[in-house]
Amino acid sequence: VPVLRILSRDAAAYRRLIEDALLPDLSITDDDASCDVVFGEPSLIAPHVAAMPRLRWIQSTWAGVEPLVAPGMRRDYTLTNARGVFGRQMVEYVFGYMLALERRLIEKYLTQRERQWDPRAPGSLEGKRVGLLGVGSIGADLARTAKHFGMHVRGYTRTSEDCPDVDEYAHGDSLIPFARDLDYLVLTLPSAPHTRRLVNAEVLAALPQRAVVINPGRGSTVDEEALIDALRSGRLAGAVLDVFDTEPLPPDHTFWTMDNVLITSHTAALSDPASIAGIFVENYRRYLSDEPLQYGVDFNAGY
Amino acid sequence: VPVLRILSRDAAAYRRLIEDALLPDLSITDDDASCDVVFGEPSLIAPHVAAMPRLRWIQSTWAGVEPLVAPGMRRDYTLTNARGVFGRQMVEYVFGYMLALERRLIEKYLTQRERQWDPRAPGSLEGKRVGLLGVGSIGADLARTAKHFGMHVRGYTRTSEDCPDVDEYAHGDSLIPFARDLDYLVLTLPSAPHTRRLVNAEVLAALPQRAVVINPGRGSTVDEEALIDALRSGRLAGAVLDVFDTEPLPPDHTFWTMDNVLITSHTAALSDPASIAGIFVENYRRYLSDEPLQYGVDFNAGY
Repeated sequence: VPVLRILSRDAAAYRRLIEDALLPDLSITDDDASCDVVFGEPSLIAPHVAAMPRLRWIQSTWAGVEPLVAPGMRRDYTLTNARGVFGRQMVEYVFGYMLALERRLIEKYLTQRERQWDPRAPGSLEGKRVGLLGVGSIGADLARTAKHFGMHVRGYTRTSEDCPDVDEYAHGDSLIPFARDLDYLVLTLPSAPHTRRLVNAEVLAALPQRAVVINPGRGSTVDEEALIDALRSGRLAGAVLDVFDTEPLPPDHTFWTMDNVLITSHTAALSDPASIAGIFVENYRRYLSDEPLQYGVDFNAGY
Repeated sequence: VPVLRILSRDAAAYRRLIEDALLPDLSITDDDASCDVVFGEPSLIAPHVAAMPRLRWIQSTWAGVEPLVAPGMRRDYTLTNARGVFGRQMVEYVFGYMLALERRLIEKYLTQRERQWDPRAPGSLEGKRVGLLGVGSIGADLARTAKHFGMHVRGYTRTSEDCPDVDEYAHGDSLIPFARDLDYLVLTLPSAPHTRRLVNAEVLAALPQRAVVINPGRGSTVDEEALIDALRSGRLAGAVLDVFDTEPLPPDHTFWTMDNVLITSHTAALSDPASIAGIFVENYRRYLSDEPLQYGVDFNAGY
């Protein structure tokens, strides 16, 4: 009989949602020693895993699982994350901001406060080029919506080329040609050794002057100093940033004061308890019937 | 041999685009008496039509053709408009603003200026209800994108029910039940006697308090005083307005000063000369081969 331990800031809400799902055979414990299934936030779970002798499966409520895949952590169980629920939110975030930039939404808001009729023409996403750095489940959702808006879609991945909405793939050391001619560069990369500072001064220099960088992924994938240089000198049109090296972003950070930066305070995709519990419920069904679980994490890749 | 007269503020650009298309048998004139085909803005064409004895077809560069369908104007020719090129722009406008509202884009822009980390959760379009007042070619494009974002779509039309992306249709005197429970009411109605002040105090009162009215259609379809009352009293959450009874909106107009109104100065969908010329080129091919023209206007309906 599966024994579940919930380790979450929202433990009470999750417990209610999981109990309401009336899952067969499931009991819930507050004890590390007896649980074989764990559900919750990686940062809360990580200190406990060494003391869980019966551990077989952890379902993370987050997409990022860094604390559980850090060097020295055990890897003798199945780890699944919640990346499936973030795609839709990421789509609304990325396209909300891209459309707002094309439509000059903030400029028009500011002229409105001056009571000025503002007939400046908007731009359009149609025919523009978007580069997706990372084409996992979230990138695939972004690609699909980009095609809906008539964009040309480039995807940069390690190897896979299985997303039908990507027009052009790039891999390995072709990140510089990938960046050339992009109107938007969207980063949905996980935090991992091979993604660290992947968007460096050289990549930023390869982007055209009109380009905008959008990062709802991880702060660690961008060289923030290089990004500030590119934005300040006008070699890059703008950036929409949800994630940073240090969060909350310190009050004296340069990003706050830059006219061509929009900051969204790590709200691009939030964990909605009902949706996350839904992932657990479906994976629990698979766990009971020995089917492969959804959204499995590769310990070597770290995501 | 067809003889074309161009009456447009962008006559030189249109002439170049049309000449570049190398249309068979076409000659261009500056003379009312000899032309059978006219291309241009309805307001510029209207004073000339009585003096055009050979007139057979007018291609409007606008979607709205009010000056040409006013009482007393001749109706012995084929009138086509340019509604086909506005759908994509309208989609980017409407969804750009809906997503910006859900994502609290302007609120987050304002807290950014205060250097404040702003973890407030955004909303989502998923599962929300949008009501389309008018489901012509533009409304059908909006419906398709609304389904892409997982919305429930209601359509209010005179009679037709042929858009596959509308979940629920309403007609005639069922505008009040149509308005109930909507999150967004989007107006893409043409200006016509039966659409005048269709969105009145009663319709606005039927909307829930959380609803937002988006009008990229015509100013005449809304009772502006009733809208101001509803917005000011908080009975309606907000409005995104592209069109007004008087344009440009006078500097002392109440709308300018309202926190829950976003004004976009009649830029939702602009006539892009290349796209509009493309409509003319395709319709000219049909005209030569006696096929029905695209985007025909019904003189009785006025659109």
